[in-house]
Amino acid sequence: MAVRATSRLGGAAPIAILTDFGCRDHYVGAMKGVIASIAPGAPLIDITHGVPAQSIAAGAIALAQSWRLFPPRTVFLVVVDPGVGTARLPVAVQTRAGARFVGPDNGVLSLALEEAGAARAVELRAPRYRRVRVSTTFHGRDIFAPAAAHLWRGVKLDALGPPVRDGLTHLELAEPREGLEELRGEVLYVDGFGNLVSNIGRDALACFEARFPAMRLSVRIGKSAPMEIVQAYGDARKGVPLATFGSFELLEIAVRDGSAAQRFAAEPGTVVTVRPQRRTASRKPKHRQ
Amino acid sequence: MAVRATSRLGGAAPIAILTDFGCRDHYVGAMKGVIASIAPGAPLIDITHGVPAQSIAAGAIALAQSWRLFPPRTVFLVVVDPGVGTARLPVAVQTRAGARFVGPDNGVLSLALEEAGAARAVELRAPRYRRVRVSTTFHGRDIFAPAAAHLWRGVKLDALGPPVRDGLTHLELAEPREGLEELRGEVLYVDGFGNLVSNIGRDALACFEARFPAMRLSVRIGKSAPMEIVQAYGDARKGVPLATFGSFELLEIAVRDGSAAQRFAAEPGTVVTVRPQRRTASRKPKHRQ
Amino acid sequence: MAVRATSRLGGAAPIAILTDFGCRDHYVGAMKGVIASIAPGAPLIDITHGVPAQSIAAGAIALAQSWRLFPPRTVFLVVVDPGVGTARLPVAVQTRAGARFVGPDNGVLSLALEEAGAARAVELRAPRYRRVRVSTTFHGRDIFAPAAAHLWRGVKLDALGPPVRDGLTHLELAEPREGLEELRGEVLYVDGFGNLVSNIGRDALACFEARFPAMRLSVRIGKSAPMEIVQAYGDARKGVPLATFGSFELLEIAVRDGSAAQRFAAEPGTVVTVRPQRRTASRKPKHRQ
Repeated sequence: MAVRATSRLGGAAPIAILTDFGCRDHYVGAMKGVIASIAPGAPLIDITHGVPAQSIAAGAIALAQSWRLFPPRTVFLVVVDPGVGTARLPVAVQTRAGARFVGPDNGVLSLALEEAGAARAVELRAPRYRRVRVSTTFHGRDIFAPAAAHLWRGVKLDALGPPVRDGLTHLELAEPREGLEELRGEVLYVDGFGNLVSNIGRDALACFEARFPAMRLSVRIGKSAPMEIVQAYGDARKGVPLATFGSFELLEIAVRDGSAAQRFAAEPGTVVTVRPQRRTASRKPKHRQ
Repeated sequence: MAVRATSRLGGAAPIAILTDFGCRDHYVGAMKGVIASIAPGAPLIDITHGVPAQSIAAGAIALAQSWRLFPPRTVFLVVVDPGVGTARLPVAVQTRAGARFVGPDNGVLSLALEEAGAARAVELRAPRYRRVRVSTTFHGRDIFAPAAAHLWRGVKLDALGPPVRDGLTHLELAEPREGLEELRGEVLYVDGFGNLVSNIGRDALACFEARFPAMRLSVRIGKSAPMEIVQAYGDARKGVPLATFGSFELLEIAVRDGSAAQRFAAEPGTVVTVRPQRRTASRKPKHRQ
Repeated sequence: MAVRATSRLGGAAPIAILTDFGCRDHYVGAMKGVIASIAPGAPLIDITHGVPAQSIAAGAIALAQSWRLFPPRTVFLVVVDPGVGTARLPVAVQTRAGARFVGPDNGVLSLALEEAGAARAVELRAPRYRRVRVSTTFHGRDIFAPAAAHLWRGVKLDALGPPVRDGLTHLELAEPREGLEELRGEVLYVDGFGNLVSNIGRDALACFEARFPAMRLSVRIGKSAPMEIVQAYGDARKGVPLATFGSFELLEIAVRDGSAAQRFAAEPGTVVTVRPQRRTASRKPKHRQ
């Protein structure tokens, strides 16, 4: 009676995989072997395996910025799991719109689930839907991959184990704070280009900006010189730092054809401030005005 | 009425993806989510995402060395795009044989298109075939991935936007120069093994060689000692540098079980010279001759 | 008459690919293009491409730890090939259970084949199932990928070339040695988390342990302080080294939220010793006992 996950366009929805396993080892391959054995034909899509090792926050952000782009009935298989083999629960969660999320209940799913709306969550305890022998170090292969594959094949969420009663673990990201003369946020995520993605969203900036009509805002990363907010990376000259709203509607500091992370020795948590730009004495010779 | 791209062997031609996004972030995954939402069932093949960041030339070379291996009706999705959000055009190009190339018109497509023969090119402007909200920093997700997915589903090239009138951007690679006593080329590409791929093709070498009958040619990288041209990596001893014609018919400098890039501190642009080997005074004791 | 490889669950068995090509270059993409041209629709799964460059042993271990997880009729395409272009044979091997392994006969297949049971092996010599022009540097593209694709489509093993007569190359891994007071093994594999996977299996340890009833065993890596054997990574405090049986039933040294490879400057071959733990003078004050 199992029915395959099909999207509205007629093809099968994928299993989308996100881990911190890197691309050096065969661990992702091992999980895919398990899936192919249970759910042959399931389209497998890697979201990324480059989440910094054991960084729950980075994994949660990557998932939050990706899940909505996938077909409605996608099964998300998420393994960033520093507590593997300990008390944290292995879970599967169904959203109101039909997506399924499988992973450890350590907060890595939480940002996406806040947006997607978790309808039901179960603990992955049913022996039938795990590998026969479960290791203490690789639940990705032994618990999560089988659960994702069975869900994809049409196994009902409730068959995988008992409901999670005490609610799921919530990950709290730092919010930007608005002061008298500045909006103070921090770097959330450093990407592979060295771009610094902050926690300052477009709306927060618009609110702050409204208090300083007719002034331009400038951005500093740590104690850097102030940077302008521009429309696109390409609007700056090569090697010049800039601030812009990036792909996910968050204020981002970048260096055209370079790495802002290196330039500013910045990392997650580094302070980002936005201020109304003080009018400095003009450098232009007076007679040219 | 949309008809899927099918190869002559009956299966669906893939969407083949090449970017400089690396494997750390979820940017490739985001693009694939968009594709899976528009064209579920499209086989997705990664050519590579390891093109050095924002290196249009390296991306163009990787594409030129790969495209011909794919099925005739493959859709190539190419995002090496340092000018994202600026004036460079987002384009889709159809070749005479039926392949489609999607990417920024900054030269990254040009080496492949020279070989494949561009039949028609359009600017990706039709709002219907873009994401509703287009960022200034991630056209891969917002413009290129949707265009590739719609083309794969059978949408006609002309539906994506107006024809490109002024021709496509051409990338000029350095050609080797033949002098009186040497053929002088340069390193085009350094691969992950540290092999140095030069711009000296088999034909150029054959022409040069014909001028020096009965002499052997030797190769130098920068000011290195001369190296012999051998048939295969394995013909050299471990740790010994060698020159050979690599997988793409270009002269390549390698170190058996080592990295030529490290050994010679070489990078794209480093000079490679080929000379007829001077006969040196024999070291063998005379009485043995 | 060619029949596709189908698993017992009805979908097509995949082609599972393992190489040391890394994720920087387009070499894996080139192989996949060749496969897609011959066997469109074949599901392609990457086991990994991050095997340390030209490390036959690391490739053999990754394959041995993965192959069994895949569907029975999977075609494994394995290219770790430092001797490309030399005398080592390109081979395809069929196992009793129906899996096929394609790669160079340099030992990289041997650990998996010992477990899987090789039934027949052929040399990949038939021109019809190679690319027309075979390079000396990239047999992955020119010989191995076409062979895997043709096998997947249903071409018989024997059509690919003559039987291998002299047996396949065997890779000998170091076995742990049991002494009077210690079990002495070594690091086999360092994974991307910096975990040190040893050659000490659960059975070897149980045998050794039986000789020292009522004593606890401790593990040292090189000349490190002794570590306890625990059930899971999470059982140790952050930053504390531990030993545990990892995902593949081998004793593994790890650092919770850190890298054991860095901590101990360890690499493949570093000595791992297990000893019964000497009772040290208790630090607890006597009156509390």
